[in-house]
Amino acid sequence: MKTINELFGIRYPIVQGGMVWCSGWRLASAVSNAGGLGLIGAGSMKPDVLRMHIQKCKAATDKPFGVNVPLLYSQTDQVLQIIVEEGVKIVFTSAGNPKTWTDWLKERGITVVHVVASVKFAQKAEASGVHAIVAEGFEAGGHNGFDETTTFTLIPQVVQKVSIPVIAAGGIATGSGMLAAFALGAKGVQIGSRFVASTEASAHENFKQKILELDDTSTKLTLKNLVPVRLIKNTFAQRVETAINNGASKEELNQMLGKGRAKLGMFDGDLEEGELEIGQIAGLIDKILPVQTIIDQIITEFKAKKQKLVNLDFY
Amino acid sequence: MKTINELFGIRYPIVQGGMVWCSGWRLASAVSNAGGLGLIGAGSMKPDVLRMHIQKCKAATDKPFGVNVPLLYSQTDQVLQIIVEEGVKIVFTSAGNPKTWTDWLKERGITVVHVVASVKFAQKAEASGVHAIVAEGFEAGGHNGFDETTTFTLIPQVVQKVSIPVIAAGGIATGSGMLAAFALGAKGVQIGSRFVASTEASAHENFKQKILELDDTSTKLTLKNLVPVRLIKNTFAQRVETAINNGASKEELNQMLGKGRAKLGMFDGDLEEGELEIGQIAGLIDKILPVQTIIDQIITEFKAKKQKLVNLDFY
Repeated sequence: MKTINELFGIRYPIVQGGMVWCSGWRLASAVSNAGGLGLIGAGSMKPDVLRMHIQKCKAATDKPFGVNVPLLYSQTDQVLQIIVEEGVKIVFTSAGNPKTWTDWLKERGITVVHVVASVKFAQKAEASGVHAIVAEGFEAGGHNGFDETTTFTLIPQVVQKVSIPVIAAGGIATGSGMLAAFALGAKGVQIGSRFVASTEASAHENFKQKILELDDTSTKLTLKNLVPVRLIKNTFAQRVETAINNGASKEELNQMLGKGRAKLGMFDGDLEEGELEIGQIAGLIDKILPVQTIIDQIITEFKAKKQKLVNLDFY
Repeated sequence: MKTINELFGIRYPIVQGGMVWCSGWRLASAVSNAGGLGLIGAGSMKPDVLRMHIQKCKAATDKPFGVNVPLLYSQTDQVLQIIVEEGVKIVFTSAGNPKTWTDWLKERGITVVHVVASVKFAQKAEASGVHAIVAEGFEAGGHNGFDETTTFTLIPQVVQKVSIPVIAAGGIATGSGMLAAFALGAKGVQIGSRFVASTEASAHENFKQKILELDDTSTKLTLKNLVPVRLIKNTFAQRVETAINNGASKEELNQMLGKGRAKLGMFDGDLEEGELEIGQIAGLIDKILPVQTIIDQIITEFKAKKQKLVNLDFY
């Protein structure tokens, strides 16, 4: 089995999650330049905007980077065509059936990774021919699986059932978290929230500052029967929860949601009426830092905690 | 800071969760004899039954063992009096305010540990003077916190905020899981589900066999606004979910629940109409084993995975 570093041509097995409204070319190129794998989040970009981000990313780094494409969105064919035309060599797909595009992408020399939230979908992704999977737990920010399986239980169960490399996601923001993910059998980690609170993220400054105030109970997975999404419990999210508890229908919830809530919160900085997608680990994040510092700190802590674990001897 | 082994006088920092209907004297003494800390689960025992279990446990092991006491139950004063009279030296309290009894227990020479599910309650438990805390994540079986914080994110956030030892619980059933918990900063682990599927557990054979069939998506945290509890999705649990989705009131849910559901499922073996409390990690459990074998396997795997982690070098 190839290591994650060999698969992507990177120095550290750290993937930066391709997140809507937060991860444009500036964040992706910074992560790739620092030795990880940067991903442009295509989910919040129109095709021509995505092309611009890819071109700027190529100009900003000579290291490998990729694009995350949610397959359920419209214009997927156009988006993937642009990715091929621009010579991007790594695509992470999510929120959709990996069978539809994997062969097409592989025939064009692209390394394909699919994001899953359960063992069953991990096996389906492997059967579709992807090179690796991201297994993402319930604690992750933003869109999430229906089964609520947590990182701690998902990773070992997926690792036991597939033979391609598993990248752990959900709840990882530090070197300790990375070490724990490896202990559970992961070959790499995907980190989202920690990179939102970076200098280079395209998230609004209000949102970045808000992350620094959060604790372990500040987020909630909501809209579980519609589109499960983990959000900061702000005015909007609490209104949604109240409506759900009062038995609101899917139509009513869709109407409350409206359009553009994610942009309003994360990109325009409306902390009360916008959707603010962040993970449960946000309580550990207390500083906005440049990407290079974040990755240096993760690797330094990973090494130190690994040494500490080696020295642990109770038997 | 004392190690968990020093605190309890045990060989391995493995605590067996004190679970209703599953952990009587036979399981607790087997765990203590195997080098861990066995706990009798008082939550499902009348005072005189608990006294009998303590006496049998003392006869079956000369190693330390403890009792888990949910403080919200009635007869707590009587239960704690029996624990003192019988000379039990370790008490784990849960589901209630640790302030109420901690001093009283400590004055009687008892080591006190409180179970929490959030940073705030970890800090409150520390302030009440307990010797250690169990921090239990969302993936744990049975009764659970309101905040849905997962083991992977809860442990490091709690460890950062308290200075007493933290025992990780929720999702741990293997040596890899134990290693991951230590990587996140825990000083010990509490294991529940894995010990339910042991020869010595008092769980009904039907329930033990059922555990072997589960996968990562077989359980669900239900009754979130009443008494959050993680159950196998059987006929009863699905009826409850449907009622919740149809807007059932707390009174209606309480009526559906009725009395004795936990006993009916876990002790009497009614797999469809009983409550079957088990964690998300159950998907990894595929054999009913004697406690000694379970602990041997966990320690052997812990050592092997630790060595593997030591040899990991990607930078």
